[in-house]
Amino acid sequence: MLAISNRGHEMPASPIRKLVPYAEAAKKKGITVYHLNIGQPDIETPKEALDAVRNYDLKVLEYSHSAGNESYRKKLVEYYKRNAIEVAANDIIITTGGSEAILFGLMACMDAGDEVIIPEPFYANYNGFAIQADVRVVPIGSSIETGFALPPIEEFEKAVTPRTRAIVVCNPNNPTGYLYSAAEMETLRQIVLKHDLYLFADEAYREFCYDGQHTSAMHLKGAEQNVILMDTISKRYSACGGRIGAFVTKNKEVLNAAMKFAQARLSPPFYAQLLGEAAVDLPSDYFNTTKAEYRLRRDTLVKRLNAIPGVFCPNPGGAFYAMARLPIDDCDLFCQWLLEHFSHEGATVMLAPATGFYSTPGRGKNEVRLAYVLNVSAINKAMDCLELALKQYPGRQ
Amino acid sequence: MLAISNRGHEMPASPIRKLVPYAEAAKKKGITVYHLNIGQPDIETPKEALDAVRNYDLKVLEYSHSAGNESYRKKLVEYYKRNAIEVAANDIIITTGGSEAILFGLMACMDAGDEVIIPEPFYANYNGFAIQADVRVVPIGSSIETGFALPPIEEFEKAVTPRTRAIVVCNPNNPTGYLYSAAEMETLRQIVLKHDLYLFADEAYREFCYDGQHTSAMHLKGAEQNVILMDTISKRYSACGGRIGAFVTKNKEVLNAAMKFAQARLSPPFYAQLLGEAAVDLPSDYFNTTKAEYRLRRDTLVKRLNAIPGVFCPNPGGAFYAMARLPIDDCDLFCQWLLEHFSHEGATVMLAPATGFYSTPGRGKNEVRLAYVLNVSAINKAMDCLELALKQYPGRQ
Repeated sequence: MLAISNRGHEMPASPIRKLVPYAEAAKKKGITVYHLNIGQPDIETPKEALDAVRNYDLKVLEYSHSAGNESYRKKLVEYYKRNAIEVAANDIIITTGGSEAILFGLMACMDAGDEVIIPEPFYANYNGFAIQADVRVVPIGSSIETGFALPPIEEFEKAVTPRTRAIVVCNPNNPTGYLYSAAEMETLRQIVLKHDLYLFADEAYREFCYDGQHTSAMHLKGAEQNVILMDTISKRYSACGGRIGAFVTKNKEVLNAAMKFAQARLSPPFYAQLLGEAAVDLPSDYFNTTKAEYRLRRDTLVKRLNAIPGVFCPNPGGAFYAMARLPIDDCDLFCQWLLEHFSHEGATVMLAPATGFYSTPGRGKNEVRLAYVLNVSAINKAMDCLELALKQYPGRQ
Repeated sequence: MLAISNRGHEMPASPIRKLVPYAEAAKKKGITVYHLNIGQPDIETPKEALDAVRNYDLKVLEYSHSAGNESYRKKLVEYYKRNAIEVAANDIIITTGGSEAILFGLMACMDAGDEVIIPEPFYANYNGFAIQADVRVVPIGSSIETGFALPPIEEFEKAVTPRTRAIVVCNPNNPTGYLYSAAEMETLRQIVLKHDLYLFADEAYREFCYDGQHTSAMHLKGAEQNVILMDTISKRYSACGGRIGAFVTKNKEVLNAAMKFAQARLSPPFYAQLLGEAAVDLPSDYFNTTKAEYRLRRDTLVKRLNAIPGVFCPNPGGAFYAMARLPIDDCDLFCQWLLEHFSHEGATVMLAPATGFYSTPGRGKNEVRLAYVLNVSAINKAMDCLELALKQYPGRQ
């Protein structure tokens, strides 16, 4: 009998997208839905970058180099230099979004049955890529009480087995917004050096740090051969649809292996490479405006959340996400209920159930992730909804 | 010790791209290199399609739907209808090139250790995707003597094991240019139905058939649940750099599984979806000009090849490739020698060694693939080079 694969079965449906039909039904009823559920920023893509695509003259839309356009990779060297990351153009492979960089990392460094340690909660799609690569995710718990700080080194030590090949760290973190300190990054340096592990560093939100400096994994002295940077322009320039990321490492053996995967898929998309290349030349204060806007939204959101009885939201240091603990029985049911059964002044709010970000069953049941990708006025209205909803929700605890 | 993965080791370097340093060295010496080695068409991308990107007004470059823009999928339904392929918009997932469609197919339908039968020679990157998916390619031989016709049904029967899950067919074929007849497609229909196999149909070159009609796998009655179409706009509209393809199937279970892989990588690239959508509205005679040009090139190339003593080139019925048997010891050495040690009137020719398209060791050693992606004048000059080179080559047999 024709059947799909086991990995096709095991592959999790997107925890965020499975609520979409309920949101669509709410909209059909005329209800405004405040989308705090996905990391799709409302910030405009910089015009200079969009114009680079509009104004480019071409006759034949040819394959790029498999590693991406050389002119773009050279430009990225400048960008990284400004972030105190010293790399050369041939340390970089341009990828189809940060997603492909993650997949290349798993494929190039890990075999079926190997293990990767990831502090949970973590970006849900790491699970999907792990299933594609047939590798096992070993979660170690971080906790809302400590604001999702890096678990202590002993927790990593306990999780390391002979099959452990890598640690993934997302900094600043999605979904928690946590910004890892220099001391925490030093902990990671020690553990990867001690156990000969790769450190896959997802730094998609590098620009968005509100309380303190970003410490890149690429800054870790002596760990240059261990570190693989998984980058993207999606959030940095509000260019999610371009699907342009980067796989960056000083480890030549890993880069050469990843390059073979890159060659098999021929090239990354051409157009948004133009956009990414032009964006490197944006004025140096470009991120200040965006950052100020996100900070204001964060401050508004966190204050409103903590003012609701029974709600706790640690203050996130970066990215544009916050995790909140709610007085509810089950976040999946609650998020669905918000869309199906609740409205206030013709509106409701869509949140991401935190269960999708944990791989330990049962964890995160009373937590939600909120993406502050709407303006302050919309955030306030969304919080009005949430506050009232928590009073009415039948599963309140 | 830090080490790359076994699959990173096993992953083949692109058989075509490994000659690139020799081509670059030749160019540095001032030698003109006629590139008949890669499937990068010189045909201009249709202006109407390029303009759709240039003229599109957007403020935020957002993620597309994970299955691709709905407007594009609806438009593709019209395109397929014109090709007598009846599908609905929700039978289609827009992919990042045909490459991703192949990977989704392997991932959704096959597990580690499963087997896929592919007539060889075949598109070399199938090997790369198979290694990523940890599935085993089982080649069955087609032969230059019969112009690379489909092997007889008995050969498929012999290759089927309890682990066989699928057959891949590329029609018209890359690298052979062979156009499968309706009778051959019927053979495939019988075998997949008899053994409950998937039929992965790579129809990237559907538009380029010179001697007879194209029979799509989607036309096979009763095999609707078995067939997965892997499509791309790369060759159709000379839009290789856009990285837009499609995964099309009537099998809902397979489509839903593939959709989970699509969700994990969020969305296909936005820009070239605009291009693909606009291209569907090109005038109905658009392909006639391109086809006439390719046919003229094919006729020129094949005639010139067969006029060289010791050379045999069957007439390819489609795509823009031809395979030729040459009087040489080793095609890899010969193709390198052409770049390193040969020139005629300041020029040489770059060919693809056929060994990269065979997975049975030793096969294809005296064959090369030629892509007729240059105009007739360049093809003639390239053939002048080849003719003379074969006289001078020390490994001539």
